[in-house]
Amino acid sequence: MGDEGGGAPSSPPGAPPPPEPSHAERCRTLVASATRGALSTLAADPEGYPYGSVASYGLDDRGNPLFFVSLMAEHTQNAMRDPRASLLVTEPVPDGADPLASGRVTLLGRLSTVAEDDRPAARDRYLAANPSAAYYIDFGDFVFYRLDVQSIRYVGGYGRMSWVEPGAYSEAEPDPLTAAAAGIIEHMNADHAEAQILFCRHLAHRPDTTEAVMSAVDRYGFEMIAVRPAGRAAVRLGFPEECTTGEQVRQAMVSMVADARAAASRL
Amino acid sequence: MGDEGGGAPSSPPGAPPPPEPSHAERCRTLVASATRGALSTLAADPEGYPYGSVASYGLDDRGNPLFFVSLMAEHTQNAMRDPRASLLVTEPVPDGADPLASGRVTLLGRLSTVAEDDRPAARDRYLAANPSAAYYIDFGDFVFYRLDVQSIRYVGGYGRMSWVEPGAYSEAEPDPLTAAAAGIIEHMNADHAEAQILFCRHLAHRPDTTEAVMSAVDRYGFEMIAVRPAGRAAVRLGFPEECTTGEQVRQAMVSMVADARAAASRL
Repeated sequence: MGDEGGGAPSSPPGAPPPPEPSHAERCRTLVASATRGALSTLAADPEGYPYGSVASYGLDDRGNPLFFVSLMAEHTQNAMRDPRASLLVTEPVPDGADPLASGRVTLLGRLSTVAEDDRPAARDRYLAANPSAAYYIDFGDFVFYRLDVQSIRYVGGYGRMSWVEPGAYSEAEPDPLTAAAAGIIEHMNADHAEAQILFCRHLAHRPDTTEAVMSAVDRYGFEMIAVRPAGRAAVRLGFPEECTTGEQVRQAMVSMVADARAAASRL
Repeated sequence: MGDEGGGAPSSPPGAPPPPEPSHAERCRTLVASATRGALSTLAADPEGYPYGSVASYGLDDRGNPLFFVSLMAEHTQNAMRDPRASLLVTEPVPDGADPLASGRVTLLGRLSTVAEDDRPAARDRYLAANPSAAYYIDFGDFVFYRLDVQSIRYVGGYGRMSWVEPGAYSEAEPDPLTAAAAGIIEHMNADHAEAQILFCRHLAHRPDTTEAVMSAVDRYGFEMIAVRPAGRAAVRLGFPEECTTGEQVRQAMVSMVADARAAASRL
């Protein structure tokens, strides 16, 4: 966690930091969790100006965005003249939250039409992400484009940003808990507030925690906001083992509650 | 209304179409109703690639976006090298709705730092739009930029799109009902379903309407989805006079109900 909010680190001095997704994994997860972004292309008039438009996308197996665009659309016309482009994908911003604290990814690369042999796969991938496109997917004046990603900028919020290596992005797997995450967070905050206080006090070395709320979960661990007399702190804890299903998360939580109680009893 | 959905026009043959906002007014309203968009600039590496990023903005009195950006941010570095840019602003997409049916505007122009004399006004405008920026508005490593709009692309949904004249955009006024619209629509749909059926049947020449739901309202009139045996149709009706407040809308609705009843009694 880069955004500690002034608190102590989650790990005791000398211990390794809790495991967390790499920026490549965070990018791949974020891009895979959306189906619409801002596509930037280069305009003909005014010449060479970057032109932002809305584009729906799917992803190929290396995380390259696939678009299905009208031949008449500005961005298509732009791409036919100059293939340089980028796709900006942003995390949804919770109501009332600071938009600049949310994650976003810019994928820069070149647009090209999908070769005939690859079209059936592109069609399947695009329709899986955009089922409502089924009613015009066979229109003749639409065409598949792929953005071959060359360069990736990740901004995870204030102070958490980097250029991500395209190879690492291509090979990264979207987090397997993405679909389950909202349910896990809701369940933990509704039914396991006490367990989270125990985690913060006895596993994250913040003994004065009075309240704790889960804010994120991924295969490697989870994040909480710990409320303490001195203010709020972001806390991350790693799972004992990687979790790829909600059931594995449940088992990890049970074992971590036992660890926290054992640590408390040693006080 | 360009998106009639296959229904008959709202006006009888030969009558003028109901008044509606110009595309310049729709653009100005859309841009004024948001505070965040996708800023496209030109990257240094890979050179000349359009680079999309998230940017919060306010507006000057001519509708030019004002940004308050970190000197270290990629888009700021890009703008210092090459001022060509665009800002994409999109309407919120209702849950489950087709994102390509929602409105969006691309403002293309050149970015330049705000001159010292204009900075207090820019600061006020920016803070009015982004109150949470107050805590860093006086940081030394941030700077105000303005996008001087040269060219405007408007897409209001399928088949409703145009290039908008920048002068018309600068002089257009954001719709005065923007803030009140959601409340008006909710009230009309909750409490005045019968009145809307009357409107569709007797003012919009769709006598077989069985159900009607308001979908939009602006100073010139309002839009409904009319449900008929043959399917749904988008219907627009103009107010007898321009309405700039919710109270004026209420009075217009009362007078239009009387007109619809009078038309019904003549059948």
